[in-house]
Amino acid sequence: MERRTMYRVSNPHLDALSKDNLYHLGLSTEDDLQRLFGDVKFVCLGGSVSRMEGLSVFLHEKLEIPLPEDGKPTNLCRTDRYVLFKVGPVIAANHGMGMPSLSILLHELAKLLHYAKVEDPVFIRLGTSGGIGIPPGSVVVTDAAFDGSLRCQHEDIVLGKVRTTPAILNKELAQEIVSLCGDVDYQVVIGSTMATSDFYEGQGRLDGALCEYTEADKMEFLERLKKIGIKNIEMEATQLAAFCHRANIRAAVVCVTLLNRLNGDQVDIPPKVYADYQKRPMETVYQYIKKHVEKKKDDDDVDEPATKKAK
Amino acid sequence: MERRTMYRVSNPHLDALSKDNLYHLGLSTEDDLQRLFGDVKFVCLGGSVSRMEGLSVFLHEKLEIPLPEDGKPTNLCRTDRYVLFKVGPVIAANHGMGMPSLSILLHELAKLLHYAKVEDPVFIRLGTSGGIGIPPGSVVVTDAAFDGSLRCQHEDIVLGKVRTTPAILNKELAQEIVSLCGDVDYQVVIGSTMATSDFYEGQGRLDGALCEYTEADKMEFLERLKKIGIKNIEMEATQLAAFCHRANIRAAVVCVTLLNRLNGDQVDIPPKVYADYQKRPMETVYQYIKKHVEKKKDDDDVDEPATKKAK
Repeated sequence: MERRTMYRVSNPHLDALSKDNLYHLGLSTEDDLQRLFGDVKFVCLGGSVSRMEGLSVFLHEKLEIPLPEDGKPTNLCRTDRYVLFKVGPVIAANHGMGMPSLSILLHELAKLLHYAKVEDPVFIRLGTSGGIGIPPGSVVVTDAAFDGSLRCQHEDIVLGKVRTTPAILNKELAQEIVSLCGDVDYQVVIGSTMATSDFYEGQGRLDGALCEYTEADKMEFLERLKKIGIKNIEMEATQLAAFCHRANIRAAVVCVTLLNRLNGDQVDIPPKVYADYQKRPMETVYQYIKKHVEKKKDDDDVDEPATKKAK
Repeated sequence: MERRTMYRVSNPHLDALSKDNLYHLGLSTEDDLQRLFGDVKFVCLGGSVSRMEGLSVFLHEKLEIPLPEDGKPTNLCRTDRYVLFKVGPVIAANHGMGMPSLSILLHELAKLLHYAKVEDPVFIRLGTSGGIGIPPGSVVVTDAAFDGSLRCQHEDIVLGKVRTTPAILNKELAQEIVSLCGDVDYQVVIGSTMATSDFYEGQGRLDGALCEYTEADKMEFLERLKKIGIKNIEMEATQLAAFCHRANIRAAVVCVTLLNRLNGDQVDIPPKVYADYQKRPMETVYQYIKKHVEKKKDDDDVDEPATKKAK
């Protein structure tokens, strides 16, 4: 049976607030967060709004939850900073690009789930990335998240002092996701992921507006990444890992690779191929969600008294 | 007369590309960038899409450039990562939240302006922020940008090594913007700005999902900021300053303060007040744009031969 622990954030100061504004979501504790979000089990995160809308439509279909009349999933976020689609037990939210934007969302989502009294949520980022030595279109499920200096940690600055948090993801979760991916015509691999705070110089690209290193410097760096088992580069994994580790939330990162960085820097994929690639993390993560939705149904049936069931 | 220098980025590798994809903008050198953007002089940047749309509508009106028939400014960005409104000599683009998201946009905008052969562009961020010891609704024009460790620099990681860039903004530009702000019923001040990579713990808030320091720790930190002349805290200034310094672009940061952080952490402003506050950086920056648009008209008149003028 699933473990069922009510999720609590760790901040004694929150008790002193008569109202807590989740400012970037446009929600507050004056909303009935438990009614709106109390059944959430899975929080799916991705950079782009349209990808998260696509995921929501896909989940509506797969989980057989009818879409609203206008054919669009319902966005419960009341600002233009993020979207927050809710499909049954799933939240699909966009985190924008980069760790600071993700960080704001994580703080506010964790508080939201705390106020909504959800049980043991799982956070999964579904993203795009640059691959290292694997074919474009591969799906990488991250087992270890490295920062730009190739350490499994996330550095931030709190009250003027640098703080270092281990960037630990849940390995069993990663393994379970990979084990469930089924028979697909693309690679789904477990591997390490490097997270950077810039797409161009931060990832050793030669095609930014500014570049002061040579192609040889770049290739030496990418070969170094390959050697230590890094399969892809993106911009959020260490932040997600560090926050969720501190916040006691199980988390995973599932990214498709858009190119093999050993062969180039430019992302130039035909729209159809791009659309196909974007669906792959969704398909991978859906198998995991499906299993646990079905498991929960079975558990609920066991929990329910026979007399009640007979009704 | 305005100095007129064609803007060039500094990256020899770009010459080797047969096509350059500005991936996150959905534009490339196969588009006629010079026709689309060749007359750009001002690049206005802000976090939120709706604020940038609001700025564009405001500029259409003020610069007497009719809006398209649907009443909406034209978005030239072809992805959902950013918006790129073009109003006469102004680009209004949203950079999302945080420095990595801004960094991607800066690289792609600088290349875009390079390919479009614009002359001497000016980048101005119009944002919201938390104030330190000044009334909510004040506008701060940044003279020095500090990072979370209270140094006037921006740190990033390139090829695995930490790189430190001075976060230098153009002081004359800041002073000119303040000098032109006119007679308004709110404060417009020059001051230092701290840029952080997190909204909650990174800015010493007590109301994030996680918090391991006390109110006394927080207040001590904020008082320290006040003492060194920091007037506001936001999440992008050092990145903008460092990139533009390296890229030889004049840049400014103009932010309204939504609250006085010495009095609290929560952003809880009535929508009407919030809308009013958001307009203030627009009004401030518009006076600067107006002056230079008029100046350019005068210069063009002088440049043009008398015979041509007589037509």
